[in-house]
Amino acid sequence: MNHTVPPVRLEPDPALCGEPDLRRVGAHPDHWYPLAWSRELKKGGTLACAFAGEPIVLVRPKDGPVFALEDRCAHRQVPLSKGKVDGCAVRCAYHGWAYSQTGACVDVPYLGKDRMPNGVRSYPVREMNGLVLVFPGDPALAEETPLPGLGSVADPAYKTRRFGREVGCHYSFMHENLMDMNHQFMHSKQMGQMKPRVLGQSRGEDWCEVRYSFKRTGGSQPLGEAVIFGERRSGIKNELERDVMTVRTEYPYQTLRIQTEGQPPVMDLWIVYVPLDKEQKRNRVFGLLSIRKPKVPFILDAAWPLLVLFTERIFREDRDIVELEQAAHDAQGEDWNQEVFPVIRTLRGLLAERGVHGSAEPA
Amino acid sequence: MNHTVPPVRLEPDPALCGEPDLRRVGAHPDHWYPLAWSRELKKGGTLACAFAGEPIVLVRPKDGPVFALEDRCAHRQVPLSKGKVDGCAVRCAYHGWAYSQTGACVDVPYLGKDRMPNGVRSYPVREMNGLVLVFPGDPALAEETPLPGLGSVADPAYKTRRFGREVGCHYSFMHENLMDMNHQFMHSKQMGQMKPRVLGQSRGEDWCEVRYSFKRTGGSQPLGEAVIFGERRSGIKNELERDVMTVRTEYPYQTLRIQTEGQPPVMDLWIVYVPLDKEQKRNRVFGLLSIRKPKVPFILDAAWPLLVLFTERIFREDRDIVELEQAAHDAQGEDWNQEVFPVIRTLRGLLAERGVHGSAEPA
Amino acid sequence: MNHTVPPVRLEPDPALCGEPDLRRVGAHPDHWYPLAWSRELKKGGTLACAFAGEPIVLVRPKDGPVFALEDRCAHRQVPLSKGKVDGCAVRCAYHGWAYSQTGACVDVPYLGKDRMPNGVRSYPVREMNGLVLVFPGDPALAEETPLPGLGSVADPAYKTRRFGREVGCHYSFMHENLMDMNHQFMHSKQMGQMKPRVLGQSRGEDWCEVRYSFKRTGGSQPLGEAVIFGERRSGIKNELERDVMTVRTEYPYQTLRIQTEGQPPVMDLWIVYVPLDKEQKRNRVFGLLSIRKPKVPFILDAAWPLLVLFTERIFREDRDIVELEQAAHDAQGEDWNQEVFPVIRTLRGLLAERGVHGSAEPA
Repeated sequence: MNHTVPPVRLEPDPALCGEPDLRRVGAHPDHWYPLAWSRELKKGGTLACAFAGEPIVLVRPKDGPVFALEDRCAHRQVPLSKGKVDGCAVRCAYHGWAYSQTGACVDVPYLGKDRMPNGVRSYPVREMNGLVLVFPGDPALAEETPLPGLGSVADPAYKTRRFGREVGCHYSFMHENLMDMNHQFMHSKQMGQMKPRVLGQSRGEDWCEVRYSFKRTGGSQPLGEAVIFGERRSGIKNELERDVMTVRTEYPYQTLRIQTEGQPPVMDLWIVYVPLDKEQKRNRVFGLLSIRKPKVPFILDAAWPLLVLFTERIFREDRDIVELEQAAHDAQGEDWNQEVFPVIRTLRGLLAERGVHGSAEPA
Repeated sequence: MNHTVPPVRLEPDPALCGEPDLRRVGAHPDHWYPLAWSRELKKGGTLACAFAGEPIVLVRPKDGPVFALEDRCAHRQVPLSKGKVDGCAVRCAYHGWAYSQTGACVDVPYLGKDRMPNGVRSYPVREMNGLVLVFPGDPALAEETPLPGLGSVADPAYKTRRFGREVGCHYSFMHENLMDMNHQFMHSKQMGQMKPRVLGQSRGEDWCEVRYSFKRTGGSQPLGEAVIFGERRSGIKNELERDVMTVRTEYPYQTLRIQTEGQPPVMDLWIVYVPLDKEQKRNRVFGLLSIRKPKVPFILDAAWPLLVLFTERIFREDRDIVELEQAAHDAQGEDWNQEVFPVIRTLRGLLAERGVHGSAEPA
Repeated sequence: MNHTVPPVRLEPDPALCGEPDLRRVGAHPDHWYPLAWSRELKKGGTLACAFAGEPIVLVRPKDGPVFALEDRCAHRQVPLSKGKVDGCAVRCAYHGWAYSQTGACVDVPYLGKDRMPNGVRSYPVREMNGLVLVFPGDPALAEETPLPGLGSVADPAYKTRRFGREVGCHYSFMHENLMDMNHQFMHSKQMGQMKPRVLGQSRGEDWCEVRYSFKRTGGSQPLGEAVIFGERRSGIKNELERDVMTVRTEYPYQTLRIQTEGQPPVMDLWIVYVPLDKEQKRNRVFGLLSIRKPKVPFILDAAWPLLVLFTERIFREDRDIVELEQAAHDAQGEDWNQEVFPVIRTLRGLLAERGVHGSAEPA
């Protein structure tokens, strides 16, 4: 009989899980978050978005910049995104109430202009590099809050893949997934066996980062990876080890760069996870994956479909596992995380410090 | 920067929303409600219905009138509607317990007749003009409570379209939708641009009504509308303005009539919204749309499919928007309605006064 | 007017329903429960199972016996069943943590062996007659707790059909369904009209049973039933009445045997209902239906598909009705059962006594 060993019952370790439950800490709204890709919002059109359960409509007038309002008509709270763009205003589909870019109600077709009812909330907006960025928090802080760097997307030496989709988990699982490169184990089918080594970690007030090198311990370099590293690698064994991967959370964004010392990154990823629902159990990923163009740029273009396929597979594996983490948290009702990797403990501390406690909703 | 205007945060206005939340006021059960169309209930058959979460089975014996019972066997609460009609009784599918029209348990196949267990609740029933009407409230009040008028369905001068389907919202959104003709804005694709003008409103103890005239401000008369008005309209501009539309809530029913003064209505709609679930967030519509036959009745018959199509489209637009209203209420957890139209304020007062407070369930 | 009879309002009868609500009593975990068929668990594979909301992974190493662990990695609680069998251990898919059959964490690829974190719970396991049995309760009691008898599955004089599927109801509805043969009424389409007669009932500390005989009152013997009774029956009327059916709940299992006095059973059913979710509103059925082989065994083999079809139809009718019972309980929020059959009152008492109160979760 091999069951005489008394069963070990795993209990959450307060020293490791900490208080409060990180999965109930809200993403802080006093930052610029992308709510849509520019191409999703047509001229003269509207787009229904959300930040942490707050419905937000993006409006692109035929002339003039994009604006963002609470996506609820002041009258009966139906989504303004179902309405029509009318000049520089958006008009509710139901009874035709119209709102300007400030959220003021500027027309009710059956009321005098002197009796306009309350309007709706408006949000600061910026559009850059194909992203529509919104400031869901205190609008008085928008002006002074820096816009995100967006990696190398604006650098012509790079070619960028825009990607992202909805993932059914708390954004913190996403940060932890990317920063803990020990999860290469999960991708061994796609990437071969790679042993990560931590070169060092550091932490500042609103950021933390870790540097890794990798050693291939089994399998051969996948084609998708070869695309990223370009022709540089051909025929050179263990070249990989000279590269450093830096993963950084600069709240609320995350970056991953691969580079050889003293040279520009061969790969530069900028990514953010925008909470969609009030409980922040779903997020929308916006990722900009920039690859440095080789001397013969044509090679990168030709290999691009391969890179897309490769990154999609990796992304799908990551998405499946973080959604299982969320499902486990839902079933348990609390965080039982037993973290042994100091890098992730640091990250968890940062996310808990910078997030919103008590309520997962924007202020 | 165009966001220096401080954002207007819409808060529910107690003076407008009132207490209690109208969307939590139950439809009063002490009225006759249609639970089914007669044609849905075959001879020797049963039909599962509901009123505000109370499951009700309609039974039509091969000989004898329809009866209505609680749709739960007294034994194990499985639906009697899954059972069989046996003479003048309905027999549960599971262990064969039988119930008469009074709800008394009249047979348990494996028990003596002297030991019959408790039965189930029965409900007063009337069948008229193709509707099975049930009185879900205090049965002592059924006899004295008037049956609904059903518009012009019984008048041979009219042809009637029976329509209806389930809509995912509180019945109060339906009343408000029909009575506020400013929502013509939403139907402008189907109906052209029509400007409603309020001629007057009135209110009694258990009713309120509003009278409108309309002026076409854009587009041409749709064919479906022409069917309703018949050949009378051909070639006469602004004839429409001589018509008066009267929308009336006579609790719990609603009617909409279009007529020229001193003449019988050209259109006479009777409609009711029967709550299905306990929370009354779903209702089933029963509508009787009666159109006055023209001198050459054949024209109306020929154009009937057009009218069906036209009204279906209108109805679909209405259904979509009221379901969005319910979804907004669900997300907010309370009513944020900011009503500026006095007619609808009156209606809201009436619905709140006549409904059931505290619990949305029948007494 | 036929509604002057005041309606009878069925209220739950405390004397009949008793306290506590039987549908909230958990199946006692201190028994051996099948969690899977042996054939479902391949060599070198894992299988995700559950008992009352507790996720359990079964692991079959390439060499060595099946073992069972909590299906949650100690690190991030993702299911170990998504991982890989690695020798005699199972390795989590995410970061590669490995667990032995005792649940001890035996490897974290990026940690020293002297710093192993907490492991996970393990469960006693037995495999017999094509079933993987797990002891979800206090492991100290596993050794002394008898394994179930499994009817005649091991007797070469019988041919056994293994069947089962998930059913959306509390396990107690299943026990009551099988033991109350008055529900033959429901199967009259499949089985003809059969009148059960109770010959007697008895009750012990952890069991109760009832003996029935049957009289055919209408219809003819179905082919599926003839398969069970074999050629013995051909041409003999009312032979059926000499047979005795014994239905027994021997907590937590149930059996149904049909035999003529002094002879071995012609049919011997062993069955159990394993709760899946925490609220125990779903169960997985594991049934072993053993039919005594006739003198010419070939006949039974030839007729087997007929028996499968017959039993599937019966089972489907049963499943539909018990799921309706659960739905009624969900809607009511409590048990309104009004039991008049003493056999079922005894059974309900037994199930309430032997189950787990307060919490439906395993200890």
